Amino acid sequence: MAPTKSSSLNVSMIVIGDEILSGRTSDLNGNWLAKFLFKTGLNFKAIRFIQDDQNEIFKALNSSFEESEIVITSGGIGPTLDDKTKNSLASYFNKKIIERDDVAEIVTKNYIQFGRTWTKEHNNYHFFPEDFTATNNPRGLAPGITYFDHTKNKLLLAGPGVPREFTQIVEQEFLPIIKHNFSNRFQENFQTVIRTKGVAEEKIFFELCPTLWQELENFGKVSSLPHTIGIDIIVSYYGNLDEHNLKLKKIRSIIELSQLATHVWQYGNKPINEMVLEYANENKFLFAFAESCTGGLVSSKITDLSGASSTFLGGVISYANSAKSHLLNVQDDTLNKFGAVSIETATEMAIGARDQFKADFAVSISGIAGPGGGTVQKPTGTVVIGYASKNINGARSFIFPGDRIRRKERFADMALLTLLELMQNRITQD
Amino acid sequence: MAPTKSSSLNVSMIVIGDEILSGRTSDLNGNWLAKFLFKTGLNFKAIRFIQDDQNEIFKALNSSFEESEIVITSGGIGPTLDDKTKNSLASYFNKKIIERDDVAEIVTKNYIQFGRTWTKEHNNYHFFPEDFTATNNPRGLAPGITYFDHTKNKLLLAGPGVPREFTQIVEQEFLPIIKHNFSNRFQENFQTVIRTKGVAEEKIFFELCPTLWQELENFGKVSSLPHTIGIDIIVSYYGNLDEHNLKLKKIRSIIELSQLATHVWQYGNKPINEMVLEYANENKFLFAFAESCTGGLVSSKITDLSGASSTFLGGVISYANSAKSHLLNVQDDTLNKFGAVSIETATEMAIGARDQFKADFAVSISGIAGPGGGTVQKPTGTVVIGYASKNINGARSFIFPGDRIRRKERFADMALLTLLELMQNRITQD
Repeated sequence: MAPTKSSSLNVSMIVIGDEILSGRTSDLNGNWLAKFLFKTGLNFKAIRFIQDDQNEIFKALNSSFEESEIVITSGGIGPTLDDKTKNSLASYFNKKIIERDDVAEIVTKNYIQFGRTWTKEHNNYHFFPEDFTATNNPRGLAPGITYFDHTKNKLLLAGPGVPREFTQIVEQEFLPIIKHNFSNRFQENFQTVIRTKGVAEEKIFFELCPTLWQELENFGKVSSLPHTIGIDIIVSYYGNLDEHNLKLKKIRSIIELSQLATHVWQYGNKPINEMVLEYANENKFLFAFAESCTGGLVSSKITDLSGASSTFLGGVISYANSAKSHLLNVQDDTLNKFGAVSIETATEMAIGARDQFKADFAVSISGIAGPGGGTVQKPTGTVVIGYASKNINGARSFIFPGDRIRRKERFADMALLTLLELMQNRITQD
Repeated sequence: MAPTKSSSLNVSMIVIGDEILSGRTSDLNGNWLAKFLFKTGLNFKAIRFIQDDQNEIFKALNSSFEESEIVITSGGIGPTLDDKTKNSLASYFNKKIIERDDVAEIVTKNYIQFGRTWTKEHNNYHFFPEDFTATNNPRGLAPGITYFDHTKNKLLLAGPGVPREFTQIVEQEFLPIIKHNFSNRFQENFQTVIRTKGVAEEKIFFELCPTLWQELENFGKVSSLPHTIGIDIIVSYYGNLDEHNLKLKKIRSIIELSQLATHVWQYGNKPINEMVLEYANENKFLFAFAESCTGGLVSSKITDLSGASSTFLGGVISYANSAKSHLLNVQDDTLNKFGAVSIETATEMAIGARDQFKADFAVSISGIAGPGGGTVQKPTGTVVIGYASKNINGARSFIFPGDRIRRKERFADMALLTLLELMQNRITQD
């Protein structure tokens, strides 16, 4: 059984807006807030996605404040007429909306950061619930809306729905308000993450290591989760950094003595693109890609990270076969004899990319993302990942389930893991 | 005021699992379900993300069944020990878990589709709530869990958390059960979407068209939403296809007579990558990209779509300047004199990509995604998008707000819009 939950502060989130429930947009703030709260040691109780409607807002506030001391809302505080949030929040606490000069000042400041001027004719931002506190919006115009109910010890924090605004207002404005109102109630939370490849969830827990789950529960709460490359096993617990390091060490030694050991590629939670970029930067390695079915996704994942330019030279997306031969010097014979998705072609693609970019290392990807294109010999989901360095070249083949988008993700992450192993000199010539 | 809501069937969703609230993964099923329910005419009331815990599940079921006839859950039905969902759902309806041969048969079928055999020693899938109905899982192993409460007219549908499994089980198994139990209660929902570029939300509604919002509310519920390229205005309403087409026509004529007309780039909801691919396919155009700061994202967006290979030749990711000159024939003089982020370099990149891939059209992207790298003349967020066809070449410069990831998205979508306008012969030489 999992250990008793800590008495840490609870947070509930309410995401307000029809555009999410109608499928027009997907929410990014919930996932971001989950990560942020985890780091700060706050316990994330629940997220509720609701329509921008006073009854729904009241109902969600009731349930949220029942379970949590802190409720954070996102969305519905902009200047357009569908934004009913501010009025509903005021009514919920029986406050009137009044014209407030102190809020007008904050709005003026919000506009100035974009080089713009605000007047009362622009919008109704300065009409604000009495007794509430407005905050700056470091990346937007609408002020944050906050209220601490001293009698019930409950804190309401309402931010904008746009992710770049929401994340900054939570970090810079809301967190200090939480700390101020609930000082000395923080507790840090840690996780040990065991990331595996090439083994199914059931095989781990029913065949390879039938007692592992119970053993890990001695350390904290256990969960397992399929990820792009394989299954992640997560053990999470409260404590301090020393306790965490000790648990991590003990868990690691259990795994390393188990049947699972050869399948583990990371003890930790670092995305594979960051692992690649850090390792290349530390070693001053230069790398490049040749992508076919991933269509630029591998390179895009690397360039999501700032600092990519010091080690990533570029890539060729050789979607058409003519591009494979013309830009990567893949031999026409190879393409004709073995096909685009083959050990031979992928190897030549990697060698070609390494040459073209004058890179230390190159990795190539050629596969069948689907839904069509599969054959009996090469079913949909087949991917061949080629590699080339000064000392070694070759390719490895995998088959991944999923739909087209999911496969592109898995192919891309497996290509990044291959590049990491190539740079670490952990691939041996077959 | 928005028109009264239809009496359509309500659906609430409960997403169960610690991995989402701890930030380990982000949910994809909520957004997918929103789109799916919208198409089927069902009204999506709310989504609740909760921890995998019986109390939380009970609480969420209570609130959900209070507002909705149908509750769909995702997550927590796998074979590992953290999956408490099945037991909680059974207890909620006062049902015992019993060993069931009919469920064992379904599980056996689920395994067979992956070429595997299942026995009762594998896991406890065949221990199942009495009176509940198990469904096939078209893409996975765990059976779907369903129960229709005839006395209260409430339907529970519990599916797996893995998106490829969840989406298929909802489409293939759950929808027929909904239709069976609530026949004749479907109503179709439509949206008219007006997608703009180059104008701020406030400018639209407070300066250009101060009465537009009210005018649009005569047709249905209005909302506005910032998207990558610009602001989208959405009008949504129930009805049939004829009524929808009439409303679309009327709304369009209102917009085309307004100050907003020149800013509209689409009346509709089609992603820009699909618009590009369709237009190129219809006209048998071949295209290629030269990407710098977007690092492959533009090409990746095109290759997210199946059928890309008939019109997309490939791209060069020229992240390093050496790649710009070596692979795209950008002149060293140009790079030295004007810099990588310039009209001149972007134009040469587009011409180079068109030549290298023997394409009809090419678009290039060079910019500063940030957070660093900006200057007074070229602040962070600057992007230059080059274009080249048989008849024309040049480049256009934009500045976008956001963080690195958000800017990459916006740069990429603006590049795709530029390609569309280039193919449509709508770019005139400056």
